[in-house]
Amino acid sequence: MTDYADLAPSSRRIMTPGPVEVDPRVLRALSYPILGQFDPEFTAIMNETMGMLRLLFRTDNKWAYPVDGTSRSGIEAVLTSLIEPGDRVLIPIYGRFGHLLHEIAERVGGEVTTIEKPWGTVFDPAEVIAAMDRVRPELVVMVHGETSTGRMQPLEAIGRECRRRDILFVVDAVATIGGVPVETDAWCMDAVIGGTQKCLSVPSGMAPVTYNGRAEEKVLARKRIERGLRMPQDSTEIPGRGLAAAVQHAYIRSNYLDLSQLQDYWSPSRLNHHTEMTSMLYGLREGLRILLQEGLDARFERHRLHEKALTAGLQAMGASLYGDPACKLPVVTCVNIPEGIDGDSVRAMLLEKFGIEIASSFGPLKGRIWRIGTMGYSCRRDNILQLLGAFEAVLLRHGVRLPAGEAVQAALHIYEQQASSKADV
Amino acid sequence: MTDYADLAPSSRRIMTPGPVEVDPRVLRALSYPILGQFDPEFTAIMNETMGMLRLLFRTDNKWAYPVDGTSRSGIEAVLTSLIEPGDRVLIPIYGRFGHLLHEIAERVGGEVTTIEKPWGTVFDPAEVIAAMDRVRPELVVMVHGETSTGRMQPLEAIGRECRRRDILFVVDAVATIGGVPVETDAWCMDAVIGGTQKCLSVPSGMAPVTYNGRAEEKVLARKRIERGLRMPQDSTEIPGRGLAAAVQHAYIRSNYLDLSQLQDYWSPSRLNHHTEMTSMLYGLREGLRILLQEGLDARFERHRLHEKALTAGLQAMGASLYGDPACKLPVVTCVNIPEGIDGDSVRAMLLEKFGIEIASSFGPLKGRIWRIGTMGYSCRRDNILQLLGAFEAVLLRHGVRLPAGEAVQAALHIYEQQASSKADV
Repeated sequence: MTDYADLAPSSRRIMTPGPVEVDPRVLRALSYPILGQFDPEFTAIMNETMGMLRLLFRTDNKWAYPVDGTSRSGIEAVLTSLIEPGDRVLIPIYGRFGHLLHEIAERVGGEVTTIEKPWGTVFDPAEVIAAMDRVRPELVVMVHGETSTGRMQPLEAIGRECRRRDILFVVDAVATIGGVPVETDAWCMDAVIGGTQKCLSVPSGMAPVTYNGRAEEKVLARKRIERGLRMPQDSTEIPGRGLAAAVQHAYIRSNYLDLSQLQDYWSPSRLNHHTEMTSMLYGLREGLRILLQEGLDARFERHRLHEKALTAGLQAMGASLYGDPACKLPVVTCVNIPEGIDGDSVRAMLLEKFGIEIASSFGPLKGRIWRIGTMGYSCRRDNILQLLGAFEAVLLRHGVRLPAGEAVQAALHIYEQQASSKADV
Repeated sequence: MTDYADLAPSSRRIMTPGPVEVDPRVLRALSYPILGQFDPEFTAIMNETMGMLRLLFRTDNKWAYPVDGTSRSGIEAVLTSLIEPGDRVLIPIYGRFGHLLHEIAERVGGEVTTIEKPWGTVFDPAEVIAAMDRVRPELVVMVHGETSTGRMQPLEAIGRECRRRDILFVVDAVATIGGVPVETDAWCMDAVIGGTQKCLSVPSGMAPVTYNGRAEEKVLARKRIERGLRMPQDSTEIPGRGLAAAVQHAYIRSNYLDLSQLQDYWSPSRLNHHTEMTSMLYGLREGLRILLQEGLDARFERHRLHEKALTAGLQAMGASLYGDPACKLPVVTCVNIPEGIDGDSVRAMLLEKFGIEIASSFGPLKGRIWRIGTMGYSCRRDNILQLLGAFEAVLLRHGVRLPAGEAVQAALHIYEQQASSKADV
């Protein structure tokens, strides 16, 4: 029973839409000895992390903290806490992760109406606003950056119109947070869910969320008085109903993902809930620290530069990019797989021979596109140049005819342009 | 915005009932560069971890994998997947974490009946069996090791009688797994939830679970066909009901904590669900590897030895131990706080001056007992001896009259006895 080998993962350049390579400083933070969850040193780290998350989300919200689980746990925590069974929920879908929002919203009891756009495009905000007026939902829930198709939805006009109609606007910014601007307050988003394993370059395991007073009001209306704290006269409880509010609201059906309990745990009262993930929080704090040291705007600029070099390289080798370029997600680049080429064989050779990982896609796009992520710590010049060279070699090996050598040169050209324009300033 | 300091947690001896100190080998594993979640090297690590978990749980179950969240996420995943709304659930409660099981079971829709024992005691199995015959539940759910009171419930007779009556028996072994025997198969437990941050000495963040074919049958009956995979004739869906089964079962109301989806993700089909927590899985694998190298029986013996030394030391200084000794949980020792002593002041001085953390308790025991954990990597001779010396000094400083110097000598005596009995063999 003792014949399990030492952990020895191979070295990888991870150029998928997540998880991506973890910054070595974050890896180091993960390896620090832990503190107890109520140790004053640790609760100070919790508070500090909340402050950093507010800067990340560009918000003055009181609540900004990680849910202890992968990104999808953050989405479910927000939806199960904000959607009361029977609430009308409008979900505009333009890729796989919109369908996931539908799936989760329905499971937690929402009366979901969806509108859909063909994959590879996004919504004109007017289409969403028209649907809002037709459906009259309590919530609009949608994806900011859809990694399945590499598209990004403009949100500002939708947010403004939600606010005017007193609709809660919930946004899945898992793929975009830390890589492209996500303006929680300016875009009138009432709740936003971020991801760690993409543009933050922290391992999967936490889901930073933020929500404002409008969202908190709904959470608190559904707060359930815990057993042992109830008064005897409360005992004639209506099944499935809370006890506290004047208008009775259905209580939140999860304990683990109940934002009303989580915010008590993250408040000065530190009401005991789960045991905080100490090591993951160390990692998240360090990832946020790196991000704030780089500066959000500089970071967004870096992501745009490497996207430009990557796409210039791909185009120089004659690759065809998938989707409407007007709404391209800067941190994911989708490439049409050439006719007659086995996409998985190309990916396998890239991984096995070159140690570089890129992704396939889902559903209607499975076998039709490759997806290349340029996120966080993986979004680096050496990665772009090595990927382009390796990708070219693998395509040649698979019989694709292309102008050899052009891709890397085109990318180098972009980088030199950038360097000289900087020198000009 | 760049004035956040380097992470620099103080050195701590963590002698609480969790989280406890993390084995340095586990900390090192956390710091390894990550692999992508579908990288064949990573899925091999997932499979290997499942095999190690079967050994930990002492089971031949097909399903043994971690849920991605803290221990409570594993409890909720099992309860929300196995309790169909309206199911009768019997929950015997003898401490705080039994109340938590009640809270979660009720939120997910169970018709819960509880029976209670005074804190500091456990159930005679016959009492639970009698309640089973009265309530006729679909499930019995209970805690194995109750850290709030430091008691441990014998489970074997209850498990056997559940099986005879075709009742699902679900056990929260968060506090005991890896520290005292947990015999999943021999005790007829249909689903067991373990914890990482206690006797496994892996940071909080994953919840290993196992369940057998009887539990899986219920999970699969409630499996919901995902949107996009349904046939048109299925569209006249009864709200809240699944579509597949002959007898219609209510589908599982969580997506994130849905065992039917999680087991697909952990199966060879690798159906995409969440993004696996790579670094945490590295840590869990290393923690399990350390445990299997030590050997489960040797590990249990080690926990008993250090408990013996600790209690001998505490008794030698005149401390009074809380609770019925016949059902003491070996990995948690509860000490009655002497009359007139501020328990929190003692704990604070231990932490601030000596870097040693012990715990208080909850509810009726708050301010009445201290709880000392001897779990996993924290369960070491140097920790026991240092704690006893420091605890004595702090109690003296708080005006407690006690025979100075006796505690450490008593513990040393136990260790010497042990060494000479080993030498005799």
